[in-house]
Amino acid sequence: MAANIITITREFGSGGRTIGRQVADTLGYTFYDWELVMKIAQESGFDADFVSENCEDSSSRFSWLFKDAGKGMDLSDQLYCAMSRVVEEIASKGKCVLVGRCADYILRERTDVLSCFIFADEEFKKERIVNVYGETEKSIDRRLKEKDGKRKSHYQYYTGRKWGRAFYYDVCLDSGRLGIDNCTSTIVALAKEIGDHQKPRED
Amino acid sequence: MAANIITITREFGSGGRTIGRQVADTLGYTFYDWELVMKIAQESGFDADFVSENCEDSSSRFSWLFKDAGKGMDLSDQLYCAMSRVVEEIASKGKCVLVGRCADYILRERTDVLSCFIFADEEFKKERIVNVYGETEKSIDRRLKEKDGKRKSHYQYYTGRKWGRAFYYDVCLDSGRLGIDNCTSTIVALAKEIGDHQKPRED
Repeated sequence: MAANIITITREFGSGGRTIGRQVADTLGYTFYDWELVMKIAQESGFDADFVSENCEDSSSRFSWLFKDAGKGMDLSDQLYCAMSRVVEEIASKGKCVLVGRCADYILRERTDVLSCFIFADEEFKKERIVNVYGETEKSIDRRLKEKDGKRKSHYQYYTGRKWGRAFYYDVCLDSGRLGIDNCTSTIVALAKEIGDHQKPRED
Repeated sequence: MAANIITITREFGSGGRTIGRQVADTLGYTFYDWELVMKIAQESGFDADFVSENCEDSSSRFSWLFKDAGKGMDLSDQLYCAMSRVVEEIASKGKCVLVGRCADYILRERTDVLSCFIFADEEFKKERIVNVYGETEKSIDRRLKEKDGKRKSHYQYYTGRKWGRAFYYDVCLDSGRLGIDNCTSTIVALAKEIGDHQKPRED
């Protein structure tokens, strides 16, 4: 019995998305990255009505806003709320790997999740951003700083958690030191072992 | 080719020491816990002369104190300094597992170390403290709080690092969620894979 859902939270350039895809391929799970979740949320009707209908009973920290859902919320909050519901729906459908900053938080009350955090040193991330993501080296320091800064802020804003604290995850891996493939095999092995009956995480 | 040295930093009650011993047994490495390191440091001559002789060229954050080594340092600083040198000596002798709060930091510039952090939820830790360590349940909350508080303060004081930040370790594992044996097998597998040629960790 393996964990049904694997969430991967990752630093920009750490290879977390690649690891997620490899894990999904190895286990035969469906793969969702954050862009795909956003696309589904938008196609599902990312508007005030959708938010009102789907988010009123949300347990998110924004529930006090939902009395006038879609009215008092800004665009970013509405999108986050819509994406949260999409993540919950995806998870309810069965075995999957979800790569994105907040999936670990959104699904924190489920007992069948293996929650992973992937990070790496600056050199490793820069090299990947240039050679794998194909970005120009010229502005790479700024790009890395901006992107990781946004990711961190977004995560902290919507979850109330500090970025990179080990206690929120089942496993944290330094892909720069361990290598992409070793991260993948570690997650696959743990997902197979832990079963789907884990107790919920303390927050 | 496996990592020569495995350091395990752990929360009180998380089973980190047990995991360390299992890893050492499986890999055929020598096992040292923090109490043993302290014993060696004390037997080696834990006094002003020892500190003066061994710590003057230390790269530790207390090096500014070492002009008058043993004089300007309090007992705790002297002991930490002596233990640091013992840890460095142990590491230089070859394959070992070191369980203790600061070994990861003391050996941070070595390239052949797999650095691990083990933590767990309160319930798991309390259960282990009572049933494995044999402490009385009566004062268990206070005991856990005190012991973890001291460990955290000691680590932060001597390393300047925040306790539980994933970025300082190659791998962080929640032993409460994953189980002791799965943590052991994960560390053994990674130690075997990463080799002894890893680049130093960024600090």
